[in-house]
Amino acid sequence: MINQKMAALGNNRSSIRELFEYGSRRAAEVGRENVFDFSIGNPSVPAPEAVRRAILEEAAGDPVALHGYTAAQGLTTVRQALADDLNRRFGMDYTGDSLYLTAGAAAALSCVFKAIACPGDEIAVLAPYFPEYLMFIESGAGAKAVVVPPDVQGFQIDFAALEQRLNERTKAVVINSPNNPSGVVYTEQTICRLAALLRAKETQYGHPIYLISDEPYRELVYDGVAAPFVPGYYDDTIVCYSYSKSLSLPGERIGYVLVPPRAADSADLYAAVCGAGRALGYVCAPSLFQRVVARCTGMTGDLTVYKTNRDLLYDGLTAMGYRCVKPAGAFYLFPQTLEPDDRAFCERAKKYDLLLVPGTDFGAPGHMRISYCVTTDTIRRALPLFEKLTREYQ
Amino acid sequence: MINQKMAALGNNRSSIRELFEYGSRRAAEVGRENVFDFSIGNPSVPAPEAVRRAILEEAAGDPVALHGYTAAQGLTTVRQALADDLNRRFGMDYTGDSLYLTAGAAAALSCVFKAIACPGDEIAVLAPYFPEYLMFIESGAGAKAVVVPPDVQGFQIDFAALEQRLNERTKAVVINSPNNPSGVVYTEQTICRLAALLRAKETQYGHPIYLISDEPYRELVYDGVAAPFVPGYYDDTIVCYSYSKSLSLPGERIGYVLVPPRAADSADLYAAVCGAGRALGYVCAPSLFQRVVARCTGMTGDLTVYKTNRDLLYDGLTAMGYRCVKPAGAFYLFPQTLEPDDRAFCERAKKYDLLLVPGTDFGAPGHMRISYCVTTDTIRRALPLFEKLTREYQ
Repeated sequence: MINQKMAALGNNRSSIRELFEYGSRRAAEVGRENVFDFSIGNPSVPAPEAVRRAILEEAAGDPVALHGYTAAQGLTTVRQALADDLNRRFGMDYTGDSLYLTAGAAAALSCVFKAIACPGDEIAVLAPYFPEYLMFIESGAGAKAVVVPPDVQGFQIDFAALEQRLNERTKAVVINSPNNPSGVVYTEQTICRLAALLRAKETQYGHPIYLISDEPYRELVYDGVAAPFVPGYYDDTIVCYSYSKSLSLPGERIGYVLVPPRAADSADLYAAVCGAGRALGYVCAPSLFQRVVARCTGMTGDLTVYKTNRDLLYDGLTAMGYRCVKPAGAFYLFPQTLEPDDRAFCERAKKYDLLLVPGTDFGAPGHMRISYCVTTDTIRRALPLFEKLTREYQ
Repeated sequence: MINQKMAALGNNRSSIRELFEYGSRRAAEVGRENVFDFSIGNPSVPAPEAVRRAILEEAAGDPVALHGYTAAQGLTTVRQALADDLNRRFGMDYTGDSLYLTAGAAAALSCVFKAIACPGDEIAVLAPYFPEYLMFIESGAGAKAVVVPPDVQGFQIDFAALEQRLNERTKAVVINSPNNPSGVVYTEQTICRLAALLRAKETQYGHPIYLISDEPYRELVYDGVAAPFVPGYYDDTIVCYSYSKSLSLPGERIGYVLVPPRAADSADLYAAVCGAGRALGYVCAPSLFQRVVARCTGMTGDLTVYKTNRDLLYDGLTAMGYRCVKPAGAFYLFPQTLEPDDRAFCERAKKYDLLLVPGTDFGAPGHMRISYCVTTDTIRRALPLFEKLTREYQ
């Protein structure tokens, strides 16, 4: 009698959640320090001290103003501060009117999908992808998610595969760079080629194709790499951002949608994002943390541990013979598994209390996701176990 | 090319939002103190000092734990603390497993509607109603909202009108007591009669009819009145709660769904609420405020000013001849307008800088909503203006 699709979504926990629960049970048996949980994407570095200071300063103020409803799109002053930060960093000239504050990137994406999708519309999703995209698009917005298979050589874009899947019903393409789960950052060349393809298809089909750029890992980049700022390359870009990773605030649910003024039907699009927020029950982004992120523009947590972890893990695994694209961002490694059946491989890894997520969950079978947002010591102690696991395949 | 329904929702600001903006413009012309904005439902009393203390105590802790993702349904300890509070106050025996923490009541309602509604389902909404219900049901969950006209005598329930609108497609009925906009609290007799009717209809149609009890004003009651705890009267009740009004935290977005274990298909229903939360992009309720409300169970802001305001306004207006059901809860008065066209009346009130919301917006034409969550001085200074307005009709 209830909605069985929703019950299934609630009951069929994701592999990640199942692994997490398995890990908790194992921890009770063998000790927390002997379970190597590489399944989670919860930042392991603390929020910068400025976040605590901002909370204390705001909490000292008038509680009626601090905790009151804000405008649905967020406080004007906060939106302007975030626009100023984008302008300073990326040479743009946005005003706060282009920003709509949200309860994190998941809310931002949900509002954008709902804002643009009409019945029958398709939204292309590039593998490897964050699995919840498919759910937001299909169960949330009622559109059709079209999966584009991965470029397994470098986890940039398989343009032939993408082009094949674009058609007159394509309303948008979703990208996520730095990428979860591959850690790869799209090069400027990739973004330019994508922009050129989408512009050609817009002309061919006679309507806009939005490029939805999901960027929660924008600041998590290493080796001097910078993620190109996508709206600078393609006008019809919509950015979804979250402070979950850059400020280590995932539980607080704070982020934004950026609808650049140059995007097609920009004013209507922004209005539709606001409308979708209303329809989905988002009233305003949490008010204290709106103010906190405005006070912390341009800051990040101390992300150096992520680079240390990446290097240790990447060097260790490739020395064992794992094939892996060296990622320049996020906090994930996405090596090939030692047998084609990635579920079987990850199941076998459990023998050594190594908890890894099968690549199949991200649309890229034959791989495994290793989240290295753990302590460096955890990685050091895990490497000998990876060696034992590897020996089983020799 | 975008979703025009969403664009319309974003562009067609509600009357309340329009009034608010009109008020801001007028304030710039005649001074803030000369505009009497009775349109908003933003609590005017500060959060209790315990909220500030809880924020400071939590902020002193480990930021990784404090700001990290929580389980989708909320922290186990927090859910248990809230269940204990319900058990203590209402003599129930819930565990935390019956609670799903949400980003406020709007999110709670959106998740519940999406969890229960299948295509073709109807959800009955009793006028006068919170206007966003219709949007959550139709644009959010894709079901059909069926409006039941009001009992204008006392703003309890017009049972004949309700019964007429129940049929085999009715999946749920939504109630909101203490009520926005009437301020009326449903009596125990009303709840008993409603429970009996719904039980009979469940038998007749052979399936559950959920009673969705939206209770953000549960603690805002006066004159020794208490709102009956609905799950104690009808098993198939789902409670949607928010701390927006009781703790004056509307901007922080924190509340919950209660799925009592005695509700039909309770386990599946709870799972479907979790699934709907996933589909709509709600990842978890804001983590700091999960902890804050657990530390403040059983507390409220100092709500006495609301009673003072109600008495002053009710006595003042009825002395002028306004007909008004005396409300025992929330912070709204819902008198009859002095002409049948409530929009015309509210438009005329603007001449005196009295900002009132037409009852038509709540499904009850011929009335006006007056939000008295303002300073008592504002009400004192407004009463002579109401007198001038009234004289126009004599």
